[in-house]
Amino acid sequence: LCPPGVLPLCCRLPAWDRAARPPPSPPQPPGLPLAPCRSFSNNKIQVELDESSGVAMMKFKSPPVNSLSLEFLTEFSISLEKLENNRACRGVIITSAVPKIFSSGLDITEMCGKSIEHYTEFWRAVQEMWLRLYGSNMVTVAAVNGSSPAGGCLMALSCDYRIMAENPKFSIGLNEAQLGIVAPFWFKDTFVNVVGHRVAERSLQLGSLHPAPEAHKLGMVDELVPEEKLMEKAAAVMAQWLALPDHARQLTKTMMRKAVLDRLVAHREEDIKNFISFVSKESIQKSLRMYMEMLKKRRS
Amino acid sequence: LCPPGVLPLCCRLPAWDRAARPPPSPPQPPGLPLAPCRSFSNNKIQVELDESSGVAMMKFKSPPVNSLSLEFLTEFSISLEKLENNRACRGVIITSAVPKIFSSGLDITEMCGKSIEHYTEFWRAVQEMWLRLYGSNMVTVAAVNGSSPAGGCLMALSCDYRIMAENPKFSIGLNEAQLGIVAPFWFKDTFVNVVGHRVAERSLQLGSLHPAPEAHKLGMVDELVPEEKLMEKAAAVMAQWLALPDHARQLTKTMMRKAVLDRLVAHREEDIKNFISFVSKESIQKSLRMYMEMLKKRRS
Amino acid sequence: LCPPGVLPLCCRLPAWDRAARPPPSPPQPPGLPLAPCRSFSNNKIQVELDESSGVAMMKFKSPPVNSLSLEFLTEFSISLEKLENNRACRGVIITSAVPKIFSSGLDITEMCGKSIEHYTEFWRAVQEMWLRLYGSNMVTVAAVNGSSPAGGCLMALSCDYRIMAENPKFSIGLNEAQLGIVAPFWFKDTFVNVVGHRVAERSLQLGSLHPAPEAHKLGMVDELVPEEKLMEKAAAVMAQWLALPDHARQLTKTMMRKAVLDRLVAHREEDIKNFISFVSKESIQKSLRMYMEMLKKRRS
Repeated sequence: LCPPGVLPLCCRLPAWDRAARPPPSPPQPPGLPLAPCRSFSNNKIQVELDESSGVAMMKFKSPPVNSLSLEFLTEFSISLEKLENNRACRGVIITSAVPKIFSSGLDITEMCGKSIEHYTEFWRAVQEMWLRLYGSNMVTVAAVNGSSPAGGCLMALSCDYRIMAENPKFSIGLNEAQLGIVAPFWFKDTFVNVVGHRVAERSLQLGSLHPAPEAHKLGMVDELVPEEKLMEKAAAVMAQWLALPDHARQLTKTMMRKAVLDRLVAHREEDIKNFISFVSKESIQKSLRMYMEMLKKRRS
Repeated sequence: LCPPGVLPLCCRLPAWDRAARPPPSPPQPPGLPLAPCRSFSNNKIQVELDESSGVAMMKFKSPPVNSLSLEFLTEFSISLEKLENNRACRGVIITSAVPKIFSSGLDITEMCGKSIEHYTEFWRAVQEMWLRLYGSNMVTVAAVNGSSPAGGCLMALSCDYRIMAENPKFSIGLNEAQLGIVAPFWFKDTFVNVVGHRVAERSLQLGSLHPAPEAHKLGMVDELVPEEKLMEKAAAVMAQWLALPDHARQLTKTMMRKAVLDRLVAHREEDIKNFISFVSKESIQKSLRMYMEMLKKRRS
Repeated sequence: LCPPGVLPLCCRLPAWDRAARPPPSPPQPPGLPLAPCRSFSNNKIQVELDESSGVAMMKFKSPPVNSLSLEFLTEFSISLEKLENNRACRGVIITSAVPKIFSSGLDITEMCGKSIEHYTEFWRAVQEMWLRLYGSNMVTVAAVNGSSPAGGCLMALSCDYRIMAENPKFSIGLNEAQLGIVAPFWFKDTFVNVVGHRVAERSLQLGSLHPAPEAHKLGMVDELVPEEKLMEKAAAVMAQWLALPDHARQLTKTMMRKAVLDRLVAHREEDIKNFISFVSKESIQKSLRMYMEMLKKRRS
């Protein structure tokens, strides 16, 4: 166990000190306050930054189910990095523009019939998304306005705060085991940090998808609100978190999350190799093809 | 901290894949479906396997209190290993055939006036029981139909799910401290994984025996049911867990429990030496003799 | 991760065995049973030992807010050490003699305009206080009869049991982030051991001061009682904990807390250096001076 970046008790810093933040992006032309963000919200994710509040909104708009394709993940990581480097942005709310679904998790088509190079690139993009989101210096709030299985659940769990629409038809969970799948260790670490070892062990083994009220009871989401109040509530929570000086909050967040982040960083290539070795098996490829055909039939 | 057996997110395996299971036992003669299990339920534990459901029942029948003697522990480990190696068996329910008691924990007579060799063999058998049960590839459900102190509590905590008769006269806990005893670190690790650090710290320091309702509130047992519904409920829970593909569930279980299992494996001989050094002390032997005489008087 | 001092399951020790305790202080002159304790309760802390029960009371009496100055911390550590070495003392209740405040936490004047030597001595005293209290062999109960921010909260969290006056005007929390401050890693470790990772992460990032009822709900305090019943309840809880044999309880406590204690011991000098480097910054010194002036104005 490495020394955890020993952090001393210290005193009030010059307010909103940004020393720990990466260097800011170059200044934007006047009169276009939202341009730097809107410019990169091209396909899958709509990004809007309100410079007056310092809060960005990232809306997933990749119908039908916001699945985490290579393109989606790449766009997500780039968008997040741009916001991270933008001094005008201090917090991000992630939510879905697709009705009833937050995100369906990893895109299975990315794992089927592709080259080793593709699998490598895809898995690295999954890791990258998590490393950036779980380790973000910004305040991150998930406004979960639909179901959120597997990788979608991971995205919510990686934020600082989770608000979910109280609709019991919406469910959330790391349900990989239901599909004969095992969640990677860093999915598990993130889950344990939120709900503790026992709840995680049971939920992961059963591959449970918890309806919103149950997810709230288990501590998977912090709050339930009526769907029409979700964005309002997310903004209020964000304002509460932004009332804290950034520097102290960021160092505190790092102190809490560093061990788990470091663990993936240390085993990243091994994790990729394991994924490739698994996904390359003929039996797995066969199962994947069957699963995709089943999905196609269900939709038509 | 060793890399935790990095497990990639993967996809549906051929259903009920048993690749991770040990090689099966040799085929049984036809017409004797229950024979392989019944054959080894000789003295202390009655084992019945329902091959249609894949569920075995292990009933402790070592009156008066199902204490964990060397013979009991050996029989338990052998029975569990046979079930583990039997492809027809996917889950085990452990319960007691003795009224009002699940198990009273370690048998003190095994620690009193015996040779170093005996203490070594006994302690290794205690470790073996836990390593096999906590690390079992099968679904393990404890139907706790009586009181369950110390080692009895450990057995329940080592299962995947705990159902307890709601009788408040039945209590459960790692009450070693009440007897001037210290629970071994791997009892503690198992406990912390179920109830978290704070509840474990308080309960272990006070050597608390929690009545069933309190144990449920603390998360030590997952569910309370009227005693007459216990076995029915255990079967229903087992069916729910068996609805998952074995392979994914097993890998997930390993991911959750490996760190704690590895810790005993790494310190096993040291743990035995510590036990022997402790139990060999004249002051301890004297206390043990007094304690056993007290128990004898109480019973007569 | 070091082997955690493998502790074998063992049996009843000669009652109240003190083998694990440090050698007792020299015998006191007869007829002065309270003298050894009273003799060192000079300035900041009033210490009274009831030799009949084996319970000492430590009352903080350093108005206006029991801030943790170098003098207070030194007196606390010396008092605790004396009690630890006194065979007549088995438990300590810590509480405040100042109305409405338990302790306001670290004394900022100790961090402002002083020499490197002073900062070193001060921070070592903060560490020493925690190492002695969190690692105490005695039963430690906090009777929190007032607000308890930052370092005051740490003292409460370091005890075996926390009872708080149910007055919602009293609050408790590691609110360092509110002041632009980061709690040291060992404050965080202590907090996580009490409330778990998620509650700690959220509370530390928000620098929350939780009113007593909320603190109870989060598990930060074990019990709420009306203020006038606080000392009576503390005595009752203490009696319950003292009903256990000391030796087994002490070894169990060590087993639970050793990992976190060892972590500071291993990184103690590094932790001091980090504190000095932080507090020596001109920007921090400026902030501290402003903060102290604000406090002065508020009081006058």
